[in-house]
Amino acid sequence: MAIDVSCESQVDDSQFREAMSRLGAGVTIISTDGPGGRAGITATAVASVTNEPPTLLICINREAQLFPVLMRNGGFCVNILSASQSELAEIFAGRKSIPQDARFGHGAWRSLQTGLPALTDCRAAIGCRISAATEIGTHSTIFGRIVELRFDRLVPPLLYVDRAYHTVRDQLASMDSGEG
Amino acid sequence: MAIDVSCESQVDDSQFREAMSRLGAGVTIISTDGPGGRAGITATAVASVTNEPPTLLICINREAQLFPVLMRNGGFCVNILSASQSELAEIFAGRKSIPQDARFGHGAWRSLQTGLPALTDCRAAIGCRISAATEIGTHSTIFGRIVELRFDRLVPPLLYVDRAYHTVRDQLASMDSGEG
Repeated sequence: MAIDVSCESQVDDSQFREAMSRLGAGVTIISTDGPGGRAGITATAVASVTNEPPTLLICINREAQLFPVLMRNGGFCVNILSASQSELAEIFAGRKSIPQDARFGHGAWRSLQTGLPALTDCRAAIGCRISAATEIGTHSTIFGRIVELRFDRLVPPLLYVDRAYHTVRDQLASMDSGEG
Repeated sequence: MAIDVSCESQVDDSQFREAMSRLGAGVTIISTDGPGGRAGITATAVASVTNEPPTLLICINREAQLFPVLMRNGGFCVNILSASQSELAEIFAGRKSIPQDARFGHGAWRSLQTGLPALTDCRAAIGCRISAATEIGTHSTIFGRIVELRFDRLVPPLLYVDRAYHTVRDQLASMDSGEG
């Protein structure tokens, strides 16, 4: 380790949360179904990994209700929400105290060919098979091999940044017109 | 695996890229310095992992110039960009053909206590020591234990979604005023 670890400061929980709140992210619902049951959770810790093979990752607290269900089912769908779906995001974040299965009474769901539940009217539904997982502290980073895609209309996205839901303004000026 | 893998379709490169483009993300510059040299790259594949211990992750192509430098240095800084920094994002994305070290002539950089380079005027600079790494296909997912934080003013964020830079509109209406 080349960085000067003697300079490490203790980063407390509130500092960690403040730092992470400053990183904007698209809001998704991670959904699953199968022998472990049906469950879903709102998540922003989703990232593209590689196109060879097409893979994304999600980070899930191992204490979350979803976690054992997800691992049992072996697959999940990442539903990328549109700006009009913040109420659905709140429901799947558990802030309405609606039990897992009843959450699916909200929003329009259908099954993908793989049997995974997908929202019909989100920006994209990405069906994944779990290909690997890594435990770090309280959470697991779960890698999903993308096996099925459904695209919907390109409506404005739902974003979460600074502890609030947002959507985007018009595109910023292209940089290509700057330096040339 | 409980999902029906016989239904797996082949997801091609353009479909993968279209799906990932629909997931909004905050734009960051990952920077590093140390015995491996100084280098930086624009990245959106950054996610919060856990607060125990405070950890985030980044996904980097192992063919990127940054990758061996990063691994040699053992640490990196995640600089969360503001809406006014899209040109800097383009420079560190390599779209201006500026060599690695000369890129740091753009933007105002200082060294963190750990020696990592941090932008002085971004939303937050998060210094990390590499704690683990996982290879998936062409990329590595690198876990960083957060060791140092610098916050700047809470200016509007730079976001990337639908293959374009954006910033946010005013906050969406709080959901708490909905169902009550």
